[in-house]
Amino acid sequence: MALATPLEERAGALAKRAKGASAALAAAGTAAKDRVLHVAADALSGERGRRVLAENQADLDLARGGGLAGPLLERLRLDEQRLAELARALREVAALPDPVGRIDALAPRPSGIHVGRMQVPLGVVLMVYESRPNVTLDAAALALKAGNAVILRGGKEALGTNRALAALLHHALNEAGLPADAAVFVDDPDHELLYALLRQRDAIDVAIPRGGTALIDAVNQHARMPVIQHYQGICHVYVHAHADLTMATRIAVNAKVQRPGVCNAMECLVVDQAVAPALLPRVVAELAAHGVLLRGCERTRALAPQVAPALPADFDTEFLALTCAIKVVDDIDDALAFLRAHGSRHTEAIVTNDHAAAMRFLREVDASCVMVNASTRFNDGGELGLGAELGISTTKLHAYGPMGLEELCAKKFVVLGRGETRGSPP
Amino acid sequence: MALATPLEERAGALAKRAKGASAALAAAGTAAKDRVLHVAADALSGERGRRVLAENQADLDLARGGGLAGPLLERLRLDEQRLAELARALREVAALPDPVGRIDALAPRPSGIHVGRMQVPLGVVLMVYESRPNVTLDAAALALKAGNAVILRGGKEALGTNRALAALLHHALNEAGLPADAAVFVDDPDHELLYALLRQRDAIDVAIPRGGTALIDAVNQHARMPVIQHYQGICHVYVHAHADLTMATRIAVNAKVQRPGVCNAMECLVVDQAVAPALLPRVVAELAAHGVLLRGCERTRALAPQVAPALPADFDTEFLALTCAIKVVDDIDDALAFLRAHGSRHTEAIVTNDHAAAMRFLREVDASCVMVNASTRFNDGGELGLGAELGISTTKLHAYGPMGLEELCAKKFVVLGRGETRGSPP
Repeated sequence: MALATPLEERAGALAKRAKGASAALAAAGTAAKDRVLHVAADALSGERGRRVLAENQADLDLARGGGLAGPLLERLRLDEQRLAELARALREVAALPDPVGRIDALAPRPSGIHVGRMQVPLGVVLMVYESRPNVTLDAAALALKAGNAVILRGGKEALGTNRALAALLHHALNEAGLPADAAVFVDDPDHELLYALLRQRDAIDVAIPRGGTALIDAVNQHARMPVIQHYQGICHVYVHAHADLTMATRIAVNAKVQRPGVCNAMECLVVDQAVAPALLPRVVAELAAHGVLLRGCERTRALAPQVAPALPADFDTEFLALTCAIKVVDDIDDALAFLRAHGSRHTEAIVTNDHAAAMRFLREVDASCVMVNASTRFNDGGELGLGAELGISTTKLHAYGPMGLEELCAKKFVVLGRGETRGSPP
Repeated sequence: MALATPLEERAGALAKRAKGASAALAAAGTAAKDRVLHVAADALSGERGRRVLAENQADLDLARGGGLAGPLLERLRLDEQRLAELARALREVAALPDPVGRIDALAPRPSGIHVGRMQVPLGVVLMVYESRPNVTLDAAALALKAGNAVILRGGKEALGTNRALAALLHHALNEAGLPADAAVFVDDPDHELLYALLRQRDAIDVAIPRGGTALIDAVNQHARMPVIQHYQGICHVYVHAHADLTMATRIAVNAKVQRPGVCNAMECLVVDQAVAPALLPRVVAELAAHGVLLRGCERTRALAPQVAPALPADFDTEFLALTCAIKVVDDIDDALAFLRAHGSRHTEAIVTNDHAAAMRFLREVDASCVMVNASTRFNDGGELGLGAELGISTTKLHAYGPMGLEELCAKKFVVLGRGETRGSPP
């Protein structure tokens, strides 16, 4: 074994603090966990909330001086209204059923034992995110409600804001009689410290990066514990040969326009050549009327000349904006191959009235959410029935799709017996 | 990006072959997958089986010459009877229900969409194991039945045997009309090639090491994809103050003696001081009568002087033999603390008639399987109702406990709509 460096020691100490608190969190009752969330929500509208806003103002001034770009400043910025939204989100998580301790079934086995699976906390969750201070409270709320200790490592631009939010959380934990180390704040944006944290496999059960691909790649590169990634959404709507074209147009417009800046928005419309002549002029006109910039393949442009030519990279881009690629395909085989090549395992939809095509699409498309005749915008914890979510996982293992309270838990087996032993005696 | 080295290229090519085959496997019907298993089982009793035995003999000769120790030689050895057991195991997997495509529920949401979760293959599974050639077929059978492509990387001592088993698998895949690359055999035991494979995050969905702690640690160290580890089982039976001592003795003996060489055997008996005077002389005599060597703490030895003194390391050892540590604890708090410090998250049992103690033990003990009044030996896929298993996962995420066909699948969301869009139009 190499000697631990001071950095390794600091990371180890942070991780051990969270692990030390995790047993108390796992054993905590619903009332105590909900009290944390309500006290934190209350505090946001009081003196502690004003302190958060003051720190945020200082962070913003510093970031502006450092030349941070407009959209990033916007993500960093908090105000009274955003604090109120954060408080509402905390109360919503408090209102969700506690997942911990639930046993889903308890069935007898031939040996006489009864076997079930109980939801238990994961243990220690390391959240790695950028300079969106709302993640500090949103992620901590979900992790704590699921009985986990959480380590919060946000972006450097939000350091002061996050420090104030962490202090508010510690106040709430203290009020509820839970250890402050249930939410360990990493008060140092040093990348090397983060990488050292990502090596603390014995104390940290899972790392969850939230942010751009560079952040996710760095976490994947350095983590020695499981990583659940929320990667980009390059989502498609495929309009099949036997689609209702009115429905197809409505779904395409909703998927692209309703909230273009989010991961479950459509980035590419895939049109079967059989319906392209009837659909394209219509859907292109509707999308353009909503301000969408369109970039199509050659076959698209032959039918809708107002569409700009797409570059190859346009079919691998998460625009997160009112921009949309369009691709005409030969048939469902061609569509499935196109999605395999260009999708990001996030959300894929087919519009069709053909039962066999719908079933085949459901079965064969590899994505966290596969839809028939519905807008990709429905891939969301609230819409799918999970309640609040930490994000939409594109990792297949453990949590694929929206990650809610249940996905922040593991399931252990429980066996209830009456003295059963295995096999012939002994 | 660094230029790919030849090693990286070789690993990339192996991984890509499996990934290329994985779509065909995911789409394969139950009949084709079961045919692979039946053809392979049949082949084991014919010419191909004899070739496996001949190669195994050559591997054994080489290993003996290289001075491989007795138990390792025993694990490497195949004979007619073991081939018959392998064939039976293949047919048992074929008889299990196909997990792929099952949708567990399909419930309506307020928006009108119906939401469910469908079981889908993980994709590509990298099996890393030692020189137990049975793992080649057992692991491949489960992975393939769950619709996955598998990369098989066994220990160097079994290289010839595994090559012959892989050829048999390829024959069976071919007979069933499935691509041979559904089971990619790594015909090179170079560690650097393994490490390069473990970096193929884009093509390999999960790495599953089967073997000793050194192997698991190496895989954890090098893997850039999720790892599901089957770590050692340091399993305890805790006899609570309010236990039926006849039941406690029966369970302790069964947990230790029925099959001492496996991971769910008891390694340490934990006795509440309240029942230690009544229980210890009796359980020590019974265990000794079954040939168990006992090593106890001071308090144990005060009550049962024939027990040898335990060294501290004995309480952190997976003996896998007829050896057992004994520890007397003050009460349930002390027992829970002892399990936290010395357990390996595998299997823990309490013997008690006290309901509150049983419930607390179930809730608070962090292990893949927690039991009340039953032998630890029940933590097994067959006994818990999963059918065949790949092993018992001590990783909390995705699969905690026995890993059967369902745990070799992921769950994606499926949405069935009738043209629903989200929010107010558009």
